[in-house]
Amino acid sequence: MKIAIVGVGAMGSRFALMLHKSGNDLVLIDGWQPNVQAIRQQGLQADFNGKAVTANIPVYSLEEVDQLQGYQPELIIAFTKSYQLDSAFAKIKALITPQTYVLCLLNGMGHESILKKYVDDNHLLLGITMWTAGLAGPGHATLFGNGNVELKNFGSEGKDFALKVVDVFNDAGLCPKYIDDPKYAIWRKACVNGTLNTLCSILDCNIGELGQTQEAADFLKTIIAEFAAVAAQEGVNLDQAEVYQHVDETFHGDIADHYPSMYQDLLKNHRKTEIDFINGAVWQKGKEYGVATPYCTLITQLIHAKEELLGV
Amino acid sequence: MKIAIVGVGAMGSRFALMLHKSGNDLVLIDGWQPNVQAIRQQGLQADFNGKAVTANIPVYSLEEVDQLQGYQPELIIAFTKSYQLDSAFAKIKALITPQTYVLCLLNGMGHESILKKYVDDNHLLLGITMWTAGLAGPGHATLFGNGNVELKNFGSEGKDFALKVVDVFNDAGLCPKYIDDPKYAIWRKACVNGTLNTLCSILDCNIGELGQTQEAADFLKTIIAEFAAVAAQEGVNLDQAEVYQHVDETFHGDIADHYPSMYQDLLKNHRKTEIDFINGAVWQKGKEYGVATPYCTLITQLIHAKEELLGV
Repeated sequence: MKIAIVGVGAMGSRFALMLHKSGNDLVLIDGWQPNVQAIRQQGLQADFNGKAVTANIPVYSLEEVDQLQGYQPELIIAFTKSYQLDSAFAKIKALITPQTYVLCLLNGMGHESILKKYVDDNHLLLGITMWTAGLAGPGHATLFGNGNVELKNFGSEGKDFALKVVDVFNDAGLCPKYIDDPKYAIWRKACVNGTLNTLCSILDCNIGELGQTQEAADFLKTIIAEFAAVAAQEGVNLDQAEVYQHVDETFHGDIADHYPSMYQDLLKNHRKTEIDFINGAVWQKGKEYGVATPYCTLITQLIHAKEELLGV
Repeated sequence: MKIAIVGVGAMGSRFALMLHKSGNDLVLIDGWQPNVQAIRQQGLQADFNGKAVTANIPVYSLEEVDQLQGYQPELIIAFTKSYQLDSAFAKIKALITPQTYVLCLLNGMGHESILKKYVDDNHLLLGITMWTAGLAGPGHATLFGNGNVELKNFGSEGKDFALKVVDVFNDAGLCPKYIDDPKYAIWRKACVNGTLNTLCSILDCNIGELGQTQEAADFLKTIIAEFAAVAAQEGVNLDQAEVYQHVDETFHGDIADHYPSMYQDLLKNHRKTEIDFINGAVWQKGKEYGVATPYCTLITQLIHAKEELLGV
């Protein structure tokens, strides 16, 4: 498949390497110049489950997209930071024809309303991924463990192409699944990010340490309840007990000693977080629907205050 | 005046030194053995506005109170940590006769309900102090700047003695004032602690840095509104705009570069905080009165989680 990956950070690199290896025709597009340079000069590198791998894949900066005239990707996968999605797609929109499909697997809510500006509902695919990925530096990813992808066409049409993507991802070892309700999956995963990512970042701890505090159960229940109250307004009826169980399992599982991506963005790399698409989205949607979300509000404000204090 | 000071930490040391210098008959009682030893061996020492001072004042540990048999203080001033108040007074209760008055100037709410177990309403004095104080180590305080004391008899009787205490404090340079509504003063000051102390501790910043975040105004308004809603249930009608102004002034004043006491307890010294007597008290009282206090609740939980993570 002819695939353009927009945003070649940690997760973009994983999908690029795995889809390249299984024989797809890829193009990479990224907004971070040192990353573009490194991939161009040394190839896209990774520590892939302990093995050093390199792939030579054409790469362009967002400012060089005009050089891709005539290249018509069947699929564009969005792996920018959430807050860069809109500006990145504004720059690549010339690549999008009426035949192009766009897949978004980003964490959090509200991406579809951005992408709908650039692509028709019936050419939009939504989903989540449980793969993890890290970035050691420009052009160099660290990729360990297992994961999966769940996706579906967002509009009423587009199922045939979604199933084609499932096949392509399957060949790449990405463990994809066509699901019936991507909005449910997105909200459910957002509960994981809206609890673990935020609280570990505020409290400066890893997932297992958070889970050992006496307050963990209350934190989770109250935050999940706010997500559920807002999700219900969008026709998504989260099973709060099941979601709690799902988040609670991480306290004792393989990733207990892991510092979530928001922690790494904020406390390690002093980068802007994606809070506005997680708890911040619940806060804003709650305001629209008249649903009180004080925990999500305070958490969003604390993360933003911390960003400012760290000079992000 | 015959005065026993119970709790000779930073603030207890300030009052001890100033009241000793002006000629009162003092006894010190403290629960921290290294502190008792240091004061006994080297005297109570302080850096007092840049000048080294030492005072030799009798000192007893909480376990040695029986050695004070027959010593009858007219006034006992409580300067323990809030969470040690009950256990300390349980140990010194033999010193309290029907003639003894007890003065409490501690930050936060709920101390009167503890002290009422040991002394009659009409022998209880309540108030606040705006003095600051630090502790460099056992028996060694660091005392800078100016402050004042506001106090009143808690019961309907006791005004004569309260005015006597004002005179004694006045002679000691403690800038006291007899006020009409100590509960108002206590709630108003708790709003300062419930915003600055907590947020600086959660965000790891000083007062001025907090004030420079875009979120500061919202933090203050929402937290003060919760305090006011609960205070109203106790007949205290806080002027929220005035209290906001009062807290906001600290962002630009002399103490802008100061790290609040809770920050020092928690992040610097890894000691238990007094959160349960500030935002935690608002949360618990709110529960009793059926008043929602989500910000105070989440803040209390975050501080407790941080205590646990730091092994306090």
